[in-house]
Amino acid sequence: MAYAEISGKDNARIKRIVKLQTSSRYRREEGFFVLEGLRTIEDAYENNIKLSEFYFTQTAYDKFSSDIEKFAQTADFTAQISDNIAKNISDTFTPQGIFAVANIPEKRENISEKGKYIALENIQDPANLGAVSRSAEALGIDGIIISNDSCDPFSPKSLRASMGTILRVPLYFTDDIASFLKKTTASSYACVVNDDAQKVGTFSFNGFSIAVIGNEANGLTQRTKDACDITVTVPMKGRAESLNAAAAASIVMWEMVK
Amino acid sequence: MAYAEISGKDNARIKRIVKLQTSSRYRREEGFFVLEGLRTIEDAYENNIKLSEFYFTQTAYDKFSSDIEKFAQTADFTAQISDNIAKNISDTFTPQGIFAVANIPEKRENISEKGKYIALENIQDPANLGAVSRSAEALGIDGIIISNDSCDPFSPKSLRASMGTILRVPLYFTDDIASFLKKTTASSYACVVNDDAQKVGTFSFNGFSIAVIGNEANGLTQRTKDACDITVTVPMKGRAESLNAAAAASIVMWEMVK
Repeated sequence: MAYAEISGKDNARIKRIVKLQTSSRYRREEGFFVLEGLRTIEDAYENNIKLSEFYFTQTAYDKFSSDIEKFAQTADFTAQISDNIAKNISDTFTPQGIFAVANIPEKRENISEKGKYIALENIQDPANLGAVSRSAEALGIDGIIISNDSCDPFSPKSLRASMGTILRVPLYFTDDIASFLKKTTASSYACVVNDDAQKVGTFSFNGFSIAVIGNEANGLTQRTKDACDITVTVPMKGRAESLNAAAAASIVMWEMVK
Repeated sequence: MAYAEISGKDNARIKRIVKLQTSSRYRREEGFFVLEGLRTIEDAYENNIKLSEFYFTQTAYDKFSSDIEKFAQTADFTAQISDNIAKNISDTFTPQGIFAVANIPEKRENISEKGKYIALENIQDPANLGAVSRSAEALGIDGIIISNDSCDPFSPKSLRASMGTILRVPLYFTDDIASFLKKTTASSYACVVNDDAQKVGTFSFNGFSIAVIGNEANGLTQRTKDACDITVTVPMKGRAESLNAAAAASIVMWEMVK
């Protein structure tokens, strides 16, 4: 099939993609994000995420023609782009040359009344957010509650670190974790670094529960700690001051679903 | 006290530091690495890592004069550097302006006959290596065995991700994890993604044991899997294909020491 061709960096659609790749604010305002790479786009496709735009290079087409034809059919607009443009819009050093633009999935409102959830307050590292999402899916956690002051799960780095799981794990957003917790009947567990807290591994998480992990440098806010039913800790030895946030979250989720 | 001052980027010592910061090969050849930031240098100091060179900016001195005087006394060579040089040699966007050069700690030979160890085969992401090191120290793991084709634990990114724990957790290096395992009497556990493997959480790790984690994209080599006594897996749900390497290692270490 023949598609439109774009070779100029000043093309309005290309400029928009660059902005969507680099600005979380612009993503939020527009309600769109960029998917990069065959694997991530395949994940979106299988999760019924509608592709509004789809772009590929000749190099990519030579390798993945049938996949590219498939995605092109579902997208509202498809164009072939030059290798230079692919480099320009890619978040990686060696772009595969396949990109799509899609709507950010609609916000989910209510968590289920008996699930196990992880909540992230002011998480700043997209690699941590991505790793938490991978662990959440792998361990069978029912969803991730994310405070709006956290990094954007739909950033290229977060999507990549999540190996596409961000597109599958149910995400819930809130301005304020403390208020969110107060509105549910879930048992809430504040994960802190404190020897006096209940030690993870020595108790069972309740059926309907939310474990809350805080910012990488500062942990949880006092307000959120106060809103939680129980304060818990992964017991530590040695001179360690804390675990990496994604490692702590993974151990806690592991214990939640055991 | 008065110290030497360096303001030119072409200074031989400064050029060497830049090379030590950016080339793992040069670090290996020279046997030296760069420590950046008060916290990391303090960690090294408390672990009796001898500082051969120490550098600070006036801005840093204004904030941390007593620490800087302390480090300066132990270093073989100390100099004040300009803010521009600090930016030039830093691996971060906002350098604190404190740097040291130190010998890479001597390689340890033999692991203890009853410890619990984690082994990393061909781990490529310094953030993962750093996170494993944090978890290893926090959970009380006795050391990390690292294949020489892994990323360098003494790179700036790995040191930073480890929060200085790389300087405290005993590290063991080997060209070949399989041969290393064959030389010990430890029970060895190959961590794989395979539903048929023994499920972590359903058995107890032996007293003297080594759990082996593989490369982020490709997992363990067949050779290393074959060299292990037992093949184990963190049971996964959903469509997840694997956990992040540091998350998997953290869950496995958590179960090892429980």
